[in-house]
Amino acid sequence: MTVEDVTIAELAELVDALPAGVVVTDPDQLDKYRRDRAADPLAGQPLAAVRAESTDHVQIAVRWAARHRVAVVPRGAGTGLSGGSTAVTGGIVLSTERMRAMRVDPLTRMAVVQPGLLNAEVKAAAAAHGLWYPPDPSSFEICSIGGNVATNAGGLCCVKYGVTTDYVLGLQVVLADGRAVRLGGPRLKDVAGLSLTKLFVGSEGTLGIVTEATLRLIPAQPPSSTLVATFPTTEAATAAILAITSAIRPAMLEYMDQTSINAVEDVLHMGLDRGAAALLVARSDSQHLAAEREMTIMNDACVASGATETLATDDPGEGEAFVAARRAAIPAVERRGALLLEDVGVPLPRLPQLVQGIETIAADRALTIALIAHAGDGNTHPLIVFDPADEDMTRRAELAFGEVMDLALTLDGTITGEHGVGRLKKAWLPGQLGPEVMELSLRIKRALDPLGILNPGAIFP
Amino acid sequence: MTVEDVTIAELAELVDALPAGVVVTDPDQLDKYRRDRAADPLAGQPLAAVRAESTDHVQIAVRWAARHRVAVVPRGAGTGLSGGSTAVTGGIVLSTERMRAMRVDPLTRMAVVQPGLLNAEVKAAAAAHGLWYPPDPSSFEICSIGGNVATNAGGLCCVKYGVTTDYVLGLQVVLADGRAVRLGGPRLKDVAGLSLTKLFVGSEGTLGIVTEATLRLIPAQPPSSTLVATFPTTEAATAAILAITSAIRPAMLEYMDQTSINAVEDVLHMGLDRGAAALLVARSDSQHLAAEREMTIMNDACVASGATETLATDDPGEGEAFVAARRAAIPAVERRGALLLEDVGVPLPRLPQLVQGIETIAADRALTIALIAHAGDGNTHPLIVFDPADEDMTRRAELAFGEVMDLALTLDGTITGEHGVGRLKKAWLPGQLGPEVMELSLRIKRALDPLGILNPGAIFP
Repeated sequence: MTVEDVTIAELAELVDALPAGVVVTDPDQLDKYRRDRAADPLAGQPLAAVRAESTDHVQIAVRWAARHRVAVVPRGAGTGLSGGSTAVTGGIVLSTERMRAMRVDPLTRMAVVQPGLLNAEVKAAAAAHGLWYPPDPSSFEICSIGGNVATNAGGLCCVKYGVTTDYVLGLQVVLADGRAVRLGGPRLKDVAGLSLTKLFVGSEGTLGIVTEATLRLIPAQPPSSTLVATFPTTEAATAAILAITSAIRPAMLEYMDQTSINAVEDVLHMGLDRGAAALLVARSDSQHLAAEREMTIMNDACVASGATETLATDDPGEGEAFVAARRAAIPAVERRGALLLEDVGVPLPRLPQLVQGIETIAADRALTIALIAHAGDGNTHPLIVFDPADEDMTRRAELAFGEVMDLALTLDGTITGEHGVGRLKKAWLPGQLGPEVMELSLRIKRALDPLGILNPGAIFP
Repeated sequence: MTVEDVTIAELAELVDALPAGVVVTDPDQLDKYRRDRAADPLAGQPLAAVRAESTDHVQIAVRWAARHRVAVVPRGAGTGLSGGSTAVTGGIVLSTERMRAMRVDPLTRMAVVQPGLLNAEVKAAAAAHGLWYPPDPSSFEICSIGGNVATNAGGLCCVKYGVTTDYVLGLQVVLADGRAVRLGGPRLKDVAGLSLTKLFVGSEGTLGIVTEATLRLIPAQPPSSTLVATFPTTEAATAAILAITSAIRPAMLEYMDQTSINAVEDVLHMGLDRGAAALLVARSDSQHLAAEREMTIMNDACVASGATETLATDDPGEGEAFVAARRAAIPAVERRGALLLEDVGVPLPRLPQLVQGIETIAADRALTIALIAHAGDGNTHPLIVFDPADEDMTRRAELAFGEVMDLALTLDGTITGEHGVGRLKKAWLPGQLGPEVMELSLRIKRALDPLGILNPGAIFP
């Protein structure tokens, strides 16, 4: 599809069908809708961005797109890390940034939200009622709840509290033909018909466009205690992780390697041990004696695995500082160069092999690969640092990018634990799913989007 | 499809392709494969039951069925309550009762199970490693884990710990063409591709036949405290439910009405208050001071709502006796006549209206409708008692059966919270989903089972 395929008159139809300011066609203004945080260099040149203000606007845009066979790339806050919102030349970008209505019902403990709200805004609105929306991607202050639903986003608390899909009770979705349907709803248990709500969560805009979500909220998380431990080797740290997860279910269990520690310390100057090979941030949010027991188990596991230092704190500010350090890792490492950002996960017992294998790939390719991880659920983020101006290095980084995913697959792992396949990882998806599950997935894609206009190029070949 | 459509020679093909004893064709032996606990009087006469011992056997049977366009009705332990396993004339029953292998991995905290195992057996195997598989249908001692996956079964602990789909990480599924695929796997977070695992959970055998499931286990549930409260009116009891759920998240919150209390007391003779209009069994499994706080909140909520008596106990045996009383309610009420068993759910604030509305339907139709409920998540089981020999009463019971579902829908509820649509409720499904979501569901069904051989008559028209 190229710009020439849609005439100026046809594009004018779309502009005229929507209120002034909704459709952006000016190339300068369009530029910010071309890429997400994956910064795909192959991003296309869209015809227009539609900044929908309602489900109705989304329907108008999708109906227009279906009529003219134009690609529709849905976009939330543009913080995706897999190129799921990379613009397609000749397509439109369907931005939900203006869809920001929200209603919290404390009695049913649910929030009905539009997709353009930030995750942090949903959390804050829930907190105002003493409630909690748990899923917490590190980017929670800048990522949209619609993007979270589209990617089935995870985060730091998932090790105990689950991922986005565990909190989505209902959706409103605009289908590929422009019809809007409601799936699920404000019911805690509902098995009437196929689990379509769950199918749409994590489908990365390839099956429909989410225009509203009904989210389950739970009582506010109780205060937590935080344990920070540093290790002389990465092996010692991964041994501590397995010792902890085989004994208890921590409320958080995060990993940073030496490169990440130093990158964060460069920015935050908080006195992290630059000499440590790895650092763990673990939390218990059990209460009273149960918390004491869990903190003792975690501390003992770290010490027995060879931790050089452990620090336990009940002080919320002090604990939060270390969690903030962990969250700051991606932007901090980004200061050292461009990043190819991985999201591989493995069954927990394979985590030591994954960490070691990534070190080997980094050495073989003469690259820096910083490693941070939601260690408690085996989900890691190797950050491959490279200089885009250095062609050889760029090529090595790209090779390493694939090698890390191949490594995860040999360890019975996944190419993506929480970021989504998008465009950057789709070449590796058949290697994980196999031809039969790919074909099964494609059958569903074709049944729901026969014209193939919804986010073409994401997930599927 | 009638028996005549498949020749004796063709049926012999199936018998010969499988080991001796796997295929049952003797009509007397077949009889027990015709109905599940819904006891559908319209159950058909199957050609054969295939008691598969492996995924391979399931594939052989499904390939044969696809070749001859024969219906395949999957069946676990036959405890389904919606007629999801009602046999189809001229079809085969695919029983998984002999598929009972299991492997528990304490390090990854997962169980890999075959579908014929009972829920209780999975729980016991997990418990042997200090682990817990939470979903607990009241029938957990007699229902199969495969049936739990097929219906996305719930239970008593779901109010705090979620339902079956929350614990299914991976599946092996035999598709409608006989191919076996693996979906998901032993990874706590995995967003690679569409959420097919979640789509198959709860699909009631209409999209494929589950031959293996990888289940997430969690650490053993801590000891719990139990509160039992009796109420002079059902209004007082539902007010207490809302007061509890808007303050805390109990580990269990179960409701029994007067008919159920008396039916259970007739059987168990445990001294339940026969004069009470309703009884609640609530649990906290928080620890120490947190448990005390929750028990106080629940007790105060019951007293403030007008409870005539409350009893709190930390004694596991005493607490379990009341939970067992609640679990015994369906078989106890069944002694009073045949049952039409409902499974309607509503958003929590609508629960009082649902309970009141059911009382009105019972009065209008001059019927006994016993009510038990997983009250904490708004999921109720009205049990319509009738005498099948009484034609007029049977007709009134059937009318009430539909009226209860219609009532739930007017309250923004669901026709089924955890039992599934099966054959008994499918006439009401379009009323809940609407024509567009029905059509969307059918598109997926046709994409995955183009010949329509998988559990025809269940869920879909």
